[in-house]
Amino acid sequence: MSEKQEGITVKKSQDFSEWYTQVIIKSGFVDYTAVSGCLAFRPDGYFAWEATMRATDELFRKDGILNVYFPLFIPEKFLQKEQEHVKGFTPEVAWVTHTGESKLDERLAVRPTSETIMYDSYSKWIRSWRDLPMRLNQWNNVVRWEFKHPVPLLRSREFLWNEGHTAFATKKEADAEQDFVLGTYEAVLKDNLAIAGIVGRKTDSEKFAGADASYSIEHILPSGKTVQGPDFHSDGQRFAKAFGITFLDKEGKKDFVYQNTFAISTRELGVMVALHGDDKGLVIPPMVARIQVVIVPIYKEDTMKEVMAATKEIQKRLSKKFRVHVDDRDAYSPGWKFNEWEMRGVPVRIELGAREIKEKKVVAARRDTGEKAPLAIGELEDGIETLLDDIQTNLYNNAKKFLYDNIRPAKTYAELKKILDQHGGMVEAGWCGSAECENRVKDETGAKITNMPLDTQKKTKGAKCTYCGKEAKHIANFGRSY
Amino acid sequence: MSEKQEGITVKKSQDFSEWYTQVIIKSGFVDYTAVSGCLAFRPDGYFAWEATMRATDELFRKDGILNVYFPLFIPEKFLQKEQEHVKGFTPEVAWVTHTGESKLDERLAVRPTSETIMYDSYSKWIRSWRDLPMRLNQWNNVVRWEFKHPVPLLRSREFLWNEGHTAFATKKEADAEQDFVLGTYEAVLKDNLAIAGIVGRKTDSEKFAGADASYSIEHILPSGKTVQGPDFHSDGQRFAKAFGITFLDKEGKKDFVYQNTFAISTRELGVMVALHGDDKGLVIPPMVARIQVVIVPIYKEDTMKEVMAATKEIQKRLSKKFRVHVDDRDAYSPGWKFNEWEMRGVPVRIELGAREIKEKKVVAARRDTGEKAPLAIGELEDGIETLLDDIQTNLYNNAKKFLYDNIRPAKTYAELKKILDQHGGMVEAGWCGSAECENRVKDETGAKITNMPLDTQKKTKGAKCTYCGKEAKHIANFGRSY
Repeated sequence: MSEKQEGITVKKSQDFSEWYTQVIIKSGFVDYTAVSGCLAFRPDGYFAWEATMRATDELFRKDGILNVYFPLFIPEKFLQKEQEHVKGFTPEVAWVTHTGESKLDERLAVRPTSETIMYDSYSKWIRSWRDLPMRLNQWNNVVRWEFKHPVPLLRSREFLWNEGHTAFATKKEADAEQDFVLGTYEAVLKDNLAIAGIVGRKTDSEKFAGADASYSIEHILPSGKTVQGPDFHSDGQRFAKAFGITFLDKEGKKDFVYQNTFAISTRELGVMVALHGDDKGLVIPPMVARIQVVIVPIYKEDTMKEVMAATKEIQKRLSKKFRVHVDDRDAYSPGWKFNEWEMRGVPVRIELGAREIKEKKVVAARRDTGEKAPLAIGELEDGIETLLDDIQTNLYNNAKKFLYDNIRPAKTYAELKKILDQHGGMVEAGWCGSAECENRVKDETGAKITNMPLDTQKKTKGAKCTYCGKEAKHIANFGRSY
Repeated sequence: MSEKQEGITVKKSQDFSEWYTQVIIKSGFVDYTAVSGCLAFRPDGYFAWEATMRATDELFRKDGILNVYFPLFIPEKFLQKEQEHVKGFTPEVAWVTHTGESKLDERLAVRPTSETIMYDSYSKWIRSWRDLPMRLNQWNNVVRWEFKHPVPLLRSREFLWNEGHTAFATKKEADAEQDFVLGTYEAVLKDNLAIAGIVGRKTDSEKFAGADASYSIEHILPSGKTVQGPDFHSDGQRFAKAFGITFLDKEGKKDFVYQNTFAISTRELGVMVALHGDDKGLVIPPMVARIQVVIVPIYKEDTMKEVMAATKEIQKRLSKKFRVHVDDRDAYSPGWKFNEWEMRGVPVRIELGAREIKEKKVVAARRDTGEKAPLAIGELEDGIETLLDDIQTNLYNNAKKFLYDNIRPAKTYAELKKILDQHGGMVEAGWCGSAECENRVKDETGAKITNMPLDTQKKTKGAKCTYCGKEAKHIANFGRSY
């Protein structure tokens, strides 16, 4: 062994925060840079994002959403056109004030989100009902310099995302998009990152700056804290009025368009790491793993030729269907390599030596459970495919179980506080709908309403607000959030 | 006809600059925004870029290049580490000085290129020969606020590109990458945007700020001006020394890595528009066209049902292989629609009416030549495929012919000046290699050396410098450039 090997030195259950940082950095998934709060996405990390983008993009395209690209910079006066919007974003904007040696006449915001620059164009592009719906989307980078304490991926100052911005002739058509978008995000999270979340409506105090109503998918992390995932905002005619986006309807009458915006970001990679990783390191779901199968040949001097030939043959076969890497570095022992690939989260490891060749079976180790099992070399493609499918499903099922295991109902405020302190996660409780109760709970417990789950609203009948005891208007999930 | 239709009001041959702007904006390919020099890429424009990215990316991946993502911001002190680099880029940097209400301790550059922030990480990631080669690439946005007079796509203040940054153990390995990268760019330009350029080496005064040697692909536009396309820079050990990127070789000896960088940008979309467009508007090569085939049904009240049924049927069939759009807007006449789709550059238009159904043939009009020909409905897939292939090939052949028709040899300086004034384009001439001659030609004629074509260097023998008459060291192309 030519180099020291350092694994993860802390247990996930003991110090989640330190464990998370070690895993994400030591595995080579991402790295810190000289710019605080801004990460370098290394090949494994960026691949996971590309896979997530590609999957989302395909579903968007099939539904008729078109990709565009708008400028990184937004004139200051644009940000100020929608009152709620400017209040929400100005405190965290990175400002360009100079170019070269010259001072700019007007400061330019590095986009924290692109409503304002896009809708100025929409007001020129949309003239008649024939131009609607206009369903555009962009994949880009945004900057929000808000955080005193950035957490890699979960709260980064620059992140990557999609921002969908759609315009419709009627509120009904605009509202009909909500199920499609949230359903798409749920499916993408499940089928790619193998994670789950609770779909619900945000309260008015937690909604997007400039929206009529916001919806989100909320996650729970092993730390007990919650984190907001992809979201969907029903903007109504607010931005349309601020930016003058009007159209002539079929009767020749002028009206403002109805708009939605929606986003999924690289934060989801952080959720993926947090949920699937273990004390050995990262666990990457097969669908987003840059390397799905690593082959480690095991040989001595006299068996090297035979083992390497078999390895190349298997690599060639498997590469037709899977993303395969052969670790043939001769300076490291097999055990050292096993540890490294486990830390890096590769879903399946194949061990191949002289004995395996003789028995016409390889040893396949799955990263999620650590189980080892023989796979017949003759049917290796099928064996690996089944294994990868199993791992993907197993990781998702675990994530979903963890989510629902950590949502606990509370009837009283005492119960709510007790659950938060003992378990964290989300507490499902009645809420009267007043901002006062919401704020008091937040001030007293540190827990906000993550969202009001869409599928629990039927339970509202007869429920009471856990804070004030009045009749509940909603069932809300309370949690301490990143 | 419910709305006024305005086509391109100037001929390409009369006023190229005005023609270019009208085509690019009126066709809906891109649009101006409130930020001077920064464009909105509309769906057709962004699709063409996505197709170009995808094609390039696939070839990069197959050769082992991995995608990453680095921060948008670069600390000022990083830019200053490589002396040539800082001189080249500082005058055009957009500076972030404030975030929210706070002034930053150190200004952050919005990346004009990412060498400095990436190589700081490389110096941490590269330790031994086993970490080499490290061949990373990112697709992102960059900002260069240099231009007094931006030209959409050709000289934009923000543009999209790839930046490949590779590190090798030896100069030989690093140099071996040059053919692959330039060959990839040439193939991508040909097979996607249907354009050609001259591959050659830049002179020392025109090379990249921080490189040992730069290579480029240079285009000629119908205006007679030249424009630089994709490039490749052999950086040697310059950045490695500035950023301390060292490795231990197999013998345990420490050395600096050898590096290359390379890029293709959205400028190529501008070249595509300029070369293929005509007096009717845009002409988009089939490979990068968001809509490859537009079907215009032609009917009267009594044939509407029949024609629309046949249209849907054909749309369904063709959509399995091609990107198809049906223009069934009833407020516009067929002639109006023909003009619109021609202006937007859709490669093939299918006209389908009652007579065509009866004769079991549609009329297919190709955008590049304007030719119309019948295509049997029974074999429409094959007919369209052949047509699209023909158009792609024809556009490329035209572009290539235009390029070589506009490179003219000159033996004397008088000849060189005459060609530049009469024809523009490139003048192929001997050059002694001195910066003095290069600069004098530039000052006196406005023409710089675009590059020294790799495949004409054999002609150097016996040639004289057109300026000073001394022995020529190179055959160089001179041109007035964007």
